Amino acid sequence: MSPTTEPYSLTATEAVAEIKSGRLTVEKYAQSLLSRYESRDSTVHAWAYLNPELVLQEARKLDAIPPAERGPLHGVAIGVKDVILTKDMPTQYNSPIYKDDHPQLDAGSVIVLRKNGALIYGKTHTTEFAATSVGPAARNPHDTTRTPGGSSSGSGAAVGDLQVPIGLGTQTIGSTIRPGSFNGIYALKPTWNSISREGQKLYSLIFDTLGLYSRSVEDLRLLINVFQLQDDEPGEHFSVKGAKFAVLKLKTPNWPEAGKGTKDALDLGVQLLTSHGAEVEELVLPDEFDDLTAWHLQVLSGDGRIAFLPDYYYAKDKLHESLVGHVENSEKYSRKEQLKAFDGLAALRPKMDAILEKYAAIIAPSALDEAPVGNNTGNATFCGIWTALHQPVVNIPGFKGANGMPIGLSVIAPRYRDQHLLRVCKEVGKIFEAEGGWKRSL
Amino acid sequence: MSPTTEPYSLTATEAVAEIKSGRLTVEKYAQSLLSRYESRDSTVHAWAYLNPELVLQEARKLDAIPPAERGPLHGVAIGVKDVILTKDMPTQYNSPIYKDDHPQLDAGSVIVLRKNGALIYGKTHTTEFAATSVGPAARNPHDTTRTPGGSSSGSGAAVGDLQVPIGLGTQTIGSTIRPGSFNGIYALKPTWNSISREGQKLYSLIFDTLGLYSRSVEDLRLLINVFQLQDDEPGEHFSVKGAKFAVLKLKTPNWPEAGKGTKDALDLGVQLLTSHGAEVEELVLPDEFDDLTAWHLQVLSGDGRIAFLPDYYYAKDKLHESLVGHVENSEKYSRKEQLKAFDGLAALRPKMDAILEKYAAIIAPSALDEAPVGNNTGNATFCGIWTALHQPVVNIPGFKGANGMPIGLSVIAPRYRDQHLLRVCKEVGKIFEAEGGWKRSL
Repeated sequence: MSPTTEPYSLTATEAVAEIKSGRLTVEKYAQSLLSRYESRDSTVHAWAYLNPELVLQEARKLDAIPPAERGPLHGVAIGVKDVILTKDMPTQYNSPIYKDDHPQLDAGSVIVLRKNGALIYGKTHTTEFAATSVGPAARNPHDTTRTPGGSSSGSGAAVGDLQVPIGLGTQTIGSTIRPGSFNGIYALKPTWNSISREGQKLYSLIFDTLGLYSRSVEDLRLLINVFQLQDDEPGEHFSVKGAKFAVLKLKTPNWPEAGKGTKDALDLGVQLLTSHGAEVEELVLPDEFDDLTAWHLQVLSGDGRIAFLPDYYYAKDKLHESLVGHVENSEKYSRKEQLKAFDGLAALRPKMDAILEKYAAIIAPSALDEAPVGNNTGNATFCGIWTALHQPVVNIPGFKGANGMPIGLSVIAPRYRDQHLLRVCKEVGKIFEAEGGWKRSL
Repeated sequence: MSPTTEPYSLTATEAVAEIKSGRLTVEKYAQSLLSRYESRDSTVHAWAYLNPELVLQEARKLDAIPPAERGPLHGVAIGVKDVILTKDMPTQYNSPIYKDDHPQLDAGSVIVLRKNGALIYGKTHTTEFAATSVGPAARNPHDTTRTPGGSSSGSGAAVGDLQVPIGLGTQTIGSTIRPGSFNGIYALKPTWNSISREGQKLYSLIFDTLGLYSRSVEDLRLLINVFQLQDDEPGEHFSVKGAKFAVLKLKTPNWPEAGKGTKDALDLGVQLLTSHGAEVEELVLPDEFDDLTAWHLQVLSGDGRIAFLPDYYYAKDKLHESLVGHVENSEKYSRKEQLKAFDGLAALRPKMDAILEKYAAIIAPSALDEAPVGNNTGNATFCGIWTALHQPVVNIPGFKGANGMPIGLSVIAPRYRDQHLLRVCKEVGKIFEAEGGWKRSL
């Protein structure tokens, strides 16, 4: 850490090193993060709950742990999306039904993080139950007239704004990767069901995935090591030079049209990889993937019918109309259609893995374009492929849109190759961040 | 209700009618249930938590609700397996890690039941995290030297012992249906993900299913109506006469050998259906189903690795060695093997539905034989097929083993045909209960 670096701006990996060396205490680190919060919160509104006294108290508890007993995340501050249970803070889901609700329970993911030394810092804003596309209060730190994306709005904004090095999100369509792109940060949606989702609000058993935000690939690796994600294959050095990638531009009528920012980012990304010695093929998905998005939404509709029934009985009048629509099956999907979609997606998963195995990774769009102006959290369609098919995805930041906002690209590997994916992203990220045209200015 | 009938012995449907008519208050009903509990608990040990004061207090609250505002389950007492969260009672999972733990949160299923008028009565014993096969304290009410089965041990025993008309269980292999057979009661494992599993301890996202116990088919229908399970097909009168069934005896080397009790029950079941005018074919599963059990256990092992990691970090020394083995992948399954199993089971689901659609239902064994003597909860293999493939199953009681203990048979329908399945079971159950040879003597 250079003498002028503020601790709040450190990545998790850097903060761990500073604390381990004794140059920084967790309490001093927390004080720096809180000063950033105090100066920025009225602009960014990332937090649904943040109690500075509790943060400092937890920080002092961590400082009191003898060095030999400290975990690999010792002192790392983590913002937790407010659809994930925390024992010492309320969980409110941005729902009037759960205002000030405070179950005495940590989610499985939060237990793992705490037991490895993390400082559970606060709860970040979400759209209602992480299942609608409007609001919440959080704003994009790079331009507050714009959305930070959703539904992991607050976690994306907080990490993008240097308020916390790590954020937890969730993804059911594109709720982790899209905010990653909009806020100019790294985002990992790991392989489905590779991190416990216990204690995370349920929307869809077969799609919901815990997501991770950071400002470096090393930080994502630190986290997935703690969650014990292991590939079958041993870790090998990865070099962009000589590697073979595919780029998936999704230009067919089955997908919305990407904006200029995303199209340019894909072109520049391919050009950069090629100029660094990689081979990049353009991939067009076979016809059998044509129904993917429709199937995803059909299964989700059926899953929402089950997941929101308790809230519907509890207080239908306080539930967003789209969720009432799920419960009442306003789309009139039959069970037969839902099963066809559920089984159809299941059959596509190994087929997508087989395509992915031919490449170091697939490069694809993370979002339509820059973060849009306003309160709508943006289109998630491009992200849905990988959520529906369970493959791990990283958003790499580095590109720039017409208004100077960050744009990221998705990098995808086969299921349970999360460690491989991070090795690829480490090298690709260096290139995209250095030469993609966007620099973090906060 | 005849003047001599004790309220505790009523089915849920009967209790609802008595309460609705004004002949019984919820408080009086609760007092009768509590008297049964007091006389039987030292023998059966069904309950992990039961607070008579809380029960009476909740009963009086229900009595105070004006008739026009009462739900369809008004006053129905429900025993909740102690892996399902309840806001007003501890949830302890039969794990020393969670002794006296009391999160202030209701599971999704419990919210639905409460909002429809149920009296959440107490927490029933389970094996550790519903994921081991030894213990707990609960005994089989028909012979206390024998197990009530597991892992939904206490719910099965409590409903079999007339201590409560309805019990909630869970099933990941055979934890609802097997105790149904052992305790001489009806058990429904509905279609996977047709009832919210939010707030129910996680073992496997793709297998875990909430289960329901009762002493009548009407009671199961009352419950699934509240949970809004709907088939695509309209309800039609079902008659055994002229219906076509298949019997699946599972006699190939891929399955354990059934004991004499189960073999005799299957033979008698077929004979009874035939004598009542049904056609019954013997079904042998195609070879492609050969790997089913191995795949089920492989996926489960991988899922346990994820699900128990938080508890492992929390207190590895307090975790059953089989669960430590999951987390440490002591079976050394590769991710590739787990994906092959996961995708293989997914491909079998529509194939099993296609077989099932040819029949009114398939009849199959629920357990190897009568409940075994001792503390091991018995073999679950026969039940695993339908858990792995997501089809709804009802255990119908009515048959008798060599020691006079109850034996049930499984009746299975395609996915999302739960209402159809109950119509079939209503008629089949009448026959099996009347002519199968076993009568409830408690």
